Amino acid sequence: MAIMKKIEYTDASSAVRAVYDDIMTSRNTDYINNIWKVLANDPASLKRNWQAMKEIMAPGALDKITKELIYLAVSMTNQCEYCINTHNAAARKAGMTDAMFAEVVAVVGLANQGNRTVAAYQVEIDERYLPNK
Amino acid sequence: MAIMKKIEYTDASSAVRAVYDDIMTSRNTDYINNIWKVLANDPASLKRNWQAMKEIMAPGALDKITKELIYLAVSMTNQCEYCINTHNAAARKAGMTDAMFAEVVAVVGLANQGNRTVAAYQVEIDERYLPNK
Amino acid sequence: MAIMKKIEYTDASSAVRAVYDDIMTSRNTDYINNIWKVLANDPASLKRNWQAMKEIMAPGALDKITKELIYLAVSMTNQCEYCINTHNAAARKAGMTDAMFAEVVAVVGLANQGNRTVAAYQVEIDERYLPNK
Amino acid sequence: MAIMKKIEYTDASSAVRAVYDDIMTSRNTDYINNIWKVLANDPASLKRNWQAMKEIMAPGALDKITKELIYLAVSMTNQCEYCINTHNAAARKAGMTDAMFAEVVAVVGLANQGNRTVAAYQVEIDERYLPNK
Amino acid sequence: MAIMKKIEYTDASSAVRAVYDDIMTSRNTDYINNIWKVLANDPASLKRNWQAMKEIMAPGALDKITKELIYLAVSMTNQCEYCINTHNAAARKAGMTDAMFAEVVAVVGLANQGNRTVAAYQVEIDERYLPNK
Amino acid sequence: MAIMKKIEYTDASSAVRAVYDDIMTSRNTDYINNIWKVLANDPASLKRNWQAMKEIMAPGALDKITKELIYLAVSMTNQCEYCINTHNAAARKAGMTDAMFAEVVAVVGLANQGNRTVAAYQVEIDERYLPNK
Repeated sequence: MAIMKKIEYTDASSAVRAVYDDIMTSRNTDYINNIWKVLANDPASLKRNWQAMKEIMAPGALDKITKELIYLAVSMTNQCEYCINTHNAAARKAGMTDAMFAEVVAVVGLANQGNRTVAAYQVEIDERYLPNK
Repeated sequence: MAIMKKIEYTDASSAVRAVYDDIMTSRNTDYINNIWKVLANDPASLKRNWQAMKEIMAPGALDKITKELIYLAVSMTNQCEYCINTHNAAARKAGMTDAMFAEVVAVVGLANQGNRTVAAYQVEIDERYLPNK
Repeated sequence: MAIMKKIEYTDASSAVRAVYDDIMTSRNTDYINNIWKVLANDPASLKRNWQAMKEIMAPGALDKITKELIYLAVSMTNQCEYCINTHNAAARKAGMTDAMFAEVVAVVGLANQGNRTVAAYQVEIDERYLPNK
Repeated sequence: MAIMKKIEYTDASSAVRAVYDDIMTSRNTDYINNIWKVLANDPASLKRNWQAMKEIMAPGALDKITKELIYLAVSMTNQCEYCINTHNAAARKAGMTDAMFAEVVAVVGLANQGNRTVAAYQVEIDERYLPNK
Repeated sequence: MAIMKKIEYTDASSAVRAVYDDIMTSRNTDYINNIWKVLANDPASLKRNWQAMKEIMAPGALDKITKELIYLAVSMTNQCEYCINTHNAAARKAGMTDAMFAEVVAVVGLANQGNRTVAAYQVEIDERYLPNK
Repeated sequence: MAIMKKIEYTDASSAVRAVYDDIMTSRNTDYINNIWKVLANDPASLKRNWQAMKEIMAPGALDKITKELIYLAVSMTNQCEYCINTHNAAARKAGMTDAMFAEVVAVVGLANQGNRTVAAYQVEIDERYLPNK
């Protein structure tokens, strides 16, 4: 159960409905995820979060599926169960296969291991990889 | 400075040289990154880490650049400076542009923000996204 | 279920009862939270944890509610469900409203996003903000 | 050094200048922090980040200083040096004293310790604190 | 429920069975933990993960129980419930008592608190502790 | 540089000197680490942190070196450079060899990788490992 109630469309203010409508149109669905219904308790947060999600996750220099895989990878690193499940669904819709999911998990595990190995030994950055701007 | 000395090729045991040789051949370079030179203090760790890196980061269901972007995304989440710089270089070599880098940062930021928002509100997983296996 | 049993008052040693009594007096309640009952398996840890909590969370240069909001913010960042729920209750008791909770979540999300953005770009500290002591 | 160059006002596009102008007006300063100059490499990110910062950190149900303390607390938890220094400056400007800073550190330490203690013992949420919405 | 189905021995390929056999022989048990059954969906990951676990957790310069306590400490820090429970069982088998478990929790809490205190104050490393290699 | 100045013995109040004296006696040294000199800006925090460190890190059910290895493991996981260096020194003094250090790093890397693998697949706890108290 969430710490705030879920606001259903029929109980929503017009500001909240406008966001729900945009979500449903943009995603071509009539389903609103729980996260939006909970965020709707604070309409300004709902709008800001949805706008950022819509803008950032849209295909650009990276395509849709690559962005979803990156979102998944961060959520696995932070161990966010809700996010893994919802973005697993989004990534599947964008074409992720079981084999691709397994490779994301492998890279995420490797990087989490590697990040700590480097920190433990306090390896200095090779001169050729130093940022210089 | 690292907490252990860097083992140069000329000072390395044959077990360590075998790994260095494989790194240079696989990557088509004559340069060995600092991380490997430090790990060489423990040849078993050097070999295991290199084998995992070589196997996991090879193109498979995901291509090389996608894997590098995911590695970068995890390293940004964990704020590992060494890893961001070395995998930035690897991703550039695999074709990452400035625009792609900027989009990785944006998705990583969004996911780190989203993961905490969901945790804060303790949003329950929508029934349709529940894992069921 | 916890990994250790919960020690109830009637089954507690006098050392544990002394802490329980202090908790109930200090908080003006007859209820002991599960965390204390589990920590009671190691009376020294129970006493040390309670003393630190009592001392640190008392009003000082910061008032009670500000301290509770900060505790909540850290727990959201670390995604600790138990801590979010118990400190949500404590913050409510100290005056936190729904609107304040929503703003804590927004700042926590923003900071988690911002921390990674800065790390990703490896932004150097502006000279004027450098610590100098 | 950052991984991207810093865009100075004189070299900035009009879109970037518009954000810089808004930052300087809103903050009543003629100084632009490094983070914005680096983000300016991707004008859409610059604008989105600044808008979120401006909107979320404005006084609302919580006042300016409380929001800055929360931002600091998250940055300490994530160990982001750049963010600690810049938001230390912002919190000082909003009235934070040395004593308040020390209390933020103490609460942040306590919460980070407490979050892991609860996780280690896997303490179940007391029925009275369960979210129920 | 897991996001992938658990592969039982009778349904497993010969490659997966070979790993299961090695797990059962090495651990002197006829039980295969859920993590291996889920990883079996990707036989290469199963084999690599098991090999790393077997090699790294074997007694060496550190004995079995010390390695299990370290694994537990990391899992408590990352708040991984599955890992705490399975490695609690492994540590118990290796001789961990309730008192030892309580001391691990105390050190883990102290270190998580200390890590943030040092970050918050940005304490510079004492010259005598600087790595110099 | 730290965000607060370091308080030297000659400039310290009697309350701070009492802690410094106890540190030097307990550790049989005439050197005070930077962390204590910075914490001395808030004498109550200095005393509480030192008391907790002294009590928790003392040999008990676990011996001194095991506790230092656990402290190191957490600091590697959190990537705290100051803590890795100072506790590396403490662990060396307690008998840690290069080979032991390398094995700590390997277990820490494995656990950080394993924690995310389990989270990614959302593996449910095996019934036999469920906490039941």
